[in-house]
Amino acid sequence: MNEDEARVNLNIDRVRARPLPLKDDHVTLAHGSGGKASAALVEHVFMDAYGNDVLSQAGDSGVVATAELVQEHGTHLAMSTDSYVVNPIEFPGGNIGELAINGTVNDLAMAGAQPKFLTAGFVLEEGLAVSTLKTIVASMREAADKAGVKIIAGDTKVVPRGAADKLFITTAGVGVVPSNRTVGAEQVREGDVIILSGPIADHGMAVMMARGDLAIQAPIESDTQAVNGMVEALFTAAPDTRWLRDATRGGVATVCNELARATAKAVVLQDEGIKVRELTRAACDILGIDPLYVANEGTFLAVVPADQAQAALDALHTSGAPEATICGRIDAQPAASVVLVTGFGGTRMVDMLVGDPLPRIC
Amino acid sequence: MNEDEARVNLNIDRVRARPLPLKDDHVTLAHGSGGKASAALVEHVFMDAYGNDVLSQAGDSGVVATAELVQEHGTHLAMSTDSYVVNPIEFPGGNIGELAINGTVNDLAMAGAQPKFLTAGFVLEEGLAVSTLKTIVASMREAADKAGVKIIAGDTKVVPRGAADKLFITTAGVGVVPSNRTVGAEQVREGDVIILSGPIADHGMAVMMARGDLAIQAPIESDTQAVNGMVEALFTAAPDTRWLRDATRGGVATVCNELARATAKAVVLQDEGIKVRELTRAACDILGIDPLYVANEGTFLAVVPADQAQAALDALHTSGAPEATICGRIDAQPAASVVLVTGFGGTRMVDMLVGDPLPRIC
Repeated sequence: MNEDEARVNLNIDRVRARPLPLKDDHVTLAHGSGGKASAALVEHVFMDAYGNDVLSQAGDSGVVATAELVQEHGTHLAMSTDSYVVNPIEFPGGNIGELAINGTVNDLAMAGAQPKFLTAGFVLEEGLAVSTLKTIVASMREAADKAGVKIIAGDTKVVPRGAADKLFITTAGVGVVPSNRTVGAEQVREGDVIILSGPIADHGMAVMMARGDLAIQAPIESDTQAVNGMVEALFTAAPDTRWLRDATRGGVATVCNELARATAKAVVLQDEGIKVRELTRAACDILGIDPLYVANEGTFLAVVPADQAQAALDALHTSGAPEATICGRIDAQPAASVVLVTGFGGTRMVDMLVGDPLPRIC
Repeated sequence: MNEDEARVNLNIDRVRARPLPLKDDHVTLAHGSGGKASAALVEHVFMDAYGNDVLSQAGDSGVVATAELVQEHGTHLAMSTDSYVVNPIEFPGGNIGELAINGTVNDLAMAGAQPKFLTAGFVLEEGLAVSTLKTIVASMREAADKAGVKIIAGDTKVVPRGAADKLFITTAGVGVVPSNRTVGAEQVREGDVIILSGPIADHGMAVMMARGDLAIQAPIESDTQAVNGMVEALFTAAPDTRWLRDATRGGVATVCNELARATAKAVVLQDEGIKVRELTRAACDILGIDPLYVANEGTFLAVVPADQAQAALDALHTSGAPEATICGRIDAQPAASVVLVTGFGGTRMVDMLVGDPLPRIC
């Protein structure tokens, strides 16, 4: 058993007591991957400095922290932020602007919040075509309308040519959390069922194809979409929904590892419950990338009580997620680990991502 | 059309009827200056696409829009965002992290809000020293503590070496607006008095000096600071404060032009009421830059009713702005213009900034 495996088997107290080591003196691409290096950077740099009650309880598929709940003046608010640096800025199925809106909407939805207001901060590279900027801004408006949110504030900075790559967007959002919703890893119980809202790995592979530096081409479209409507339907059908997470950077494997780590329970995935479209799987195979680690931008995992699982599934099927599946369950052992049960009945451990096979996909 | 909408439309009819032309096909550094080109970009690209009731009434020294008021669930919330790309990332008197906290705190304070919660999105260049990141993150925490706000969510992205310049930070913030406060250009009346909270041009010149590419050196420190405490004191002393604006990008000249444009009144500045520290003025003189156009990061303008001006000034003097001055007044003519009355009794028009003499100062 190597050190990593040993760590995975630690219970939650010991995991918290012994954070991931930060071995690097300089930032590497792996620190942006959503995997182990990201977690180490967050723990050592950001949590150490910012640590407060709200942030310490946070967890996101993203990095530093996440949407978290704030009770203020009788209203439960959730707030979230995400930066977008995807390359290229336009790809089949979407662009950086749509991604920036949907991503923050989804982060809020994953906190059980109803997204209301967004802000957008732009860093533009000198020389960017105004027509490109207009296209991106227009699709942000469209995405916001579709998600039912308003963009109420923004900022633009321009840096000299070469000091940024075309365009970066950081969105932040505020949502309101209905008082009867409590989602979080601490709500998760043994026997709970895990639901996956749709096929995985489309976004990451669509962006890879769009870069055009691969020898293969395939018409794969990003799954970028706002999921707040589906989440509302889910809560109506399964009011005791325990935990929600969109499987962005690091993919399903990474968010399941975060869940296993936070609960000190086992996340047991069923291979047959995890759909991958044929073209996407073929592209992953050719590149030697496991689709479980590829980013999604409109696909999420939900943990629900077993007796509400069918209702949850039915609700998702009729609210925009026709391909939602039951993809696993929560067990006691192996503690703090993720295992995948294959179609042949075999099992394999699914570890956290190390390094970043697909940089700049969001 | 309700009364508010009517009023806003009246005030800016002349401006809106003839928006600034957007002549460029590509983004230039001038579009990030906070001046005329910025305003044109905002009007043609962002307002066209995002335009909604909240955003349309917005105005900020920054660009796209600003902190604006949202009534939701009985609470008046203000929300704001700002991106920071300052070069170098550390300079006398502060660093990019401190700037990012203070800037968003100040944007909220300028909307009459009490800042509460902040988010921070980081874009990191591969190769950035982790020790540098730790220093910046630590000073963000310190700045947040000093301003009385909590950093509750964040995100980190890493881009390959050369795709960004070291580190960009976008902060967003939420504040609560006490129900008895209404600030905005539409509140401004002829005869109102303009107060300036301190000496100007320190931030921009400090950053210029820190770049080390000038033949001159001077120990000038940035004025970066959170002003929310001063603003609270101001509202206590002058509850009918009409309008507030921190004189960031584009400096005092630009925000005064925005005020003149939004009110269709004259902003009459008195040269003797505008303090510039000796070293800062000398540096401006050598570089041929008018301090009125240089960015500040902890200095603001307030328009107050004439009969509350002395109380406002006294309150500022004892709440962290000992050098606050009365620097001008609101007149009817010349409409929609800014004039500066010099010590010799002469006057000159102060136009909006064209181009950007000091790129990447925030």
